[in-house]
Amino acid sequence: MFYIGVDLGGTNIKAGVVDASLAGQAGGVLAKDSTETQADSGPRVVIQRVCQIVDAVRQKGSLSWEEIGGIGVGSPGTLDHKKGIIFYPPNLPGWHNVPLRDEVARNLPVGVIVENDANAAAWGEYWAGAGREVHSMVMLTLGTGIGGGIILEGKLVRGAHDSAAELGHTIIVRDGSPCGCGSRGCLEAYASATAVVRRFKEAVGVGRATSLCENVKEEKEITSKMIYEAAVAGDELAREVMEETGRYLGTGIVSIMNTVNPERVVLSGGMIHAGDMIMRPLKETVKELAFPIPAEKTEIVFATLGEDAGFIGAAGLAMERLKETKAV
Amino acid sequence: MFYIGVDLGGTNIKAGVVDASLAGQAGGVLAKDSTETQADSGPRVVIQRVCQIVDAVRQKGSLSWEEIGGIGVGSPGTLDHKKGIIFYPPNLPGWHNVPLRDEVARNLPVGVIVENDANAAAWGEYWAGAGREVHSMVMLTLGTGIGGGIILEGKLVRGAHDSAAELGHTIIVRDGSPCGCGSRGCLEAYASATAVVRRFKEAVGVGRATSLCENVKEEKEITSKMIYEAAVAGDELAREVMEETGRYLGTGIVSIMNTVNPERVVLSGGMIHAGDMIMRPLKETVKELAFPIPAEKTEIVFATLGEDAGFIGAAGLAMERLKETKAV
Repeated sequence: MFYIGVDLGGTNIKAGVVDASLAGQAGGVLAKDSTETQADSGPRVVIQRVCQIVDAVRQKGSLSWEEIGGIGVGSPGTLDHKKGIIFYPPNLPGWHNVPLRDEVARNLPVGVIVENDANAAAWGEYWAGAGREVHSMVMLTLGTGIGGGIILEGKLVRGAHDSAAELGHTIIVRDGSPCGCGSRGCLEAYASATAVVRRFKEAVGVGRATSLCENVKEEKEITSKMIYEAAVAGDELAREVMEETGRYLGTGIVSIMNTVNPERVVLSGGMIHAGDMIMRPLKETVKELAFPIPAEKTEIVFATLGEDAGFIGAAGLAMERLKETKAV
Repeated sequence: MFYIGVDLGGTNIKAGVVDASLAGQAGGVLAKDSTETQADSGPRVVIQRVCQIVDAVRQKGSLSWEEIGGIGVGSPGTLDHKKGIIFYPPNLPGWHNVPLRDEVARNLPVGVIVENDANAAAWGEYWAGAGREVHSMVMLTLGTGIGGGIILEGKLVRGAHDSAAELGHTIIVRDGSPCGCGSRGCLEAYASATAVVRRFKEAVGVGRATSLCENVKEEKEITSKMIYEAAVAGDELAREVMEETGRYLGTGIVSIMNTVNPERVVLSGGMIHAGDMIMRPLKETVKELAFPIPAEKTEIVFATLGEDAGFIGAAGLAMERLKETKAV
């Protein structure tokens, strides 16, 4: 059976058809596509575009609707996964309590489920990527913000109010830097791509030399990628900032490990291209601060599905949940 | 059916017979008893004493062995709950990889299971105390250290290496005060009874006035209870230290809530007698720093079973696990 997953983002909608029997193997993703969200046009247009891309990838995969077991949509923001309602996604303007599941289902002839996008991406890696061999896994996605997903004994941990696994908001510095969530000292305020750029600029602001200095002075754009590349090219400040990012991540991961003690921790998002420059100090911090047995046994690895994790996981969760409801 | 629970501590062994059908009601605990551990005598003597107290409470409850469904032992330290082996409990000298379950089972005619003591206490409150009405719950036990237990969707979260719910080792201050676990900045290093006394003495050391000043100077013993009582009697420093303890706890609880999003958080241990002096600043901190929906909906309450939670939970877990293994 085939399932279609959708990753609904503020900028792009990605979708793909997944062959459930081949998930995690070459050929598991039968067809995929991406389109602009056009979020400014409001929920009605966006939902229409979701339905269009779903049908487009179905046709691209040369499948009839009878071969599609269901559709999973990963959506940003807080939501009610059981009712399929999206509350107030910060990056989808005009969305307030949108019944996304029912709106999509009204236009398509198969079952639809809705999940938090970070949970969907974590499930993707668990089902078909870096977490395939384990039974419990924590994923952190390092992007503009830091998203998270937790799977324990083969089950996604959604929490009592669909608010579990907000791992970017693990507080690592009491009364620390302000975070976009309204709190202070969150991991996200130190180790997201945005925070890396901010910390780098702050260091330049207090007089630290860097090869990227002109960019900072001329207020040209600086990205975490540029900082990583400068670090590789020998820029000392850039290297320090990247390594410190690894240590911040390690500190947050220790608290998460001491709470749910997963078999494996998976890191995803653009910043993982920094590779060992982040991973080495991260692992050193975990070894130093976590309990001895988990510090030794918990595997910390990079994700393997890249940007496909979101729609693959949404497809996988559609399979899980629609199977349940159909079970005799 | 009746189950016998044992709470094995470094100082005392507590045990009780629980009527599974009446758990959480008056009469649910049919009989209980307590005896010295005599930990210095080593594992053989301690195990003998465990078996003796189990038989003593059985007789006190006027029950035959046929009426006992099984025995649960809550033990300190890291352990393998499946094999029933205790690794290196810091407060039981001479214990190294002791096969506690098999040693107890060898001497008694019913099934035995072993669990971490903090998990057993959390299960006790979930099954028969402050968590009876909910499906997910986090418990923090504030004592010499800070222990924890997590129940999600009716299942105890033990983790991949029996190391989940070490909630006292949630890092709240990066590079903060050293903790007994070898890490730095753990919640336990700020909000355990031990840490409260330390912080109080530090404040006196830098010249803060207190009604307990003479005790500090003369190096008489100061306990967290004395600090709480001084606070109630109007001592300003004592009140400040207690309230700050509430805020430290709130900070750690925010990270835990953002990770597992429980329906309810339960606080237990001697320090909860400080009541609102801790609870008010704790709740204020959670309201301020947690995500809006959980901040509003998560209930934070005190435990109700007191020191009985450990053996009640051990009995309850014996029922859960021995039922499973006996199921056809």
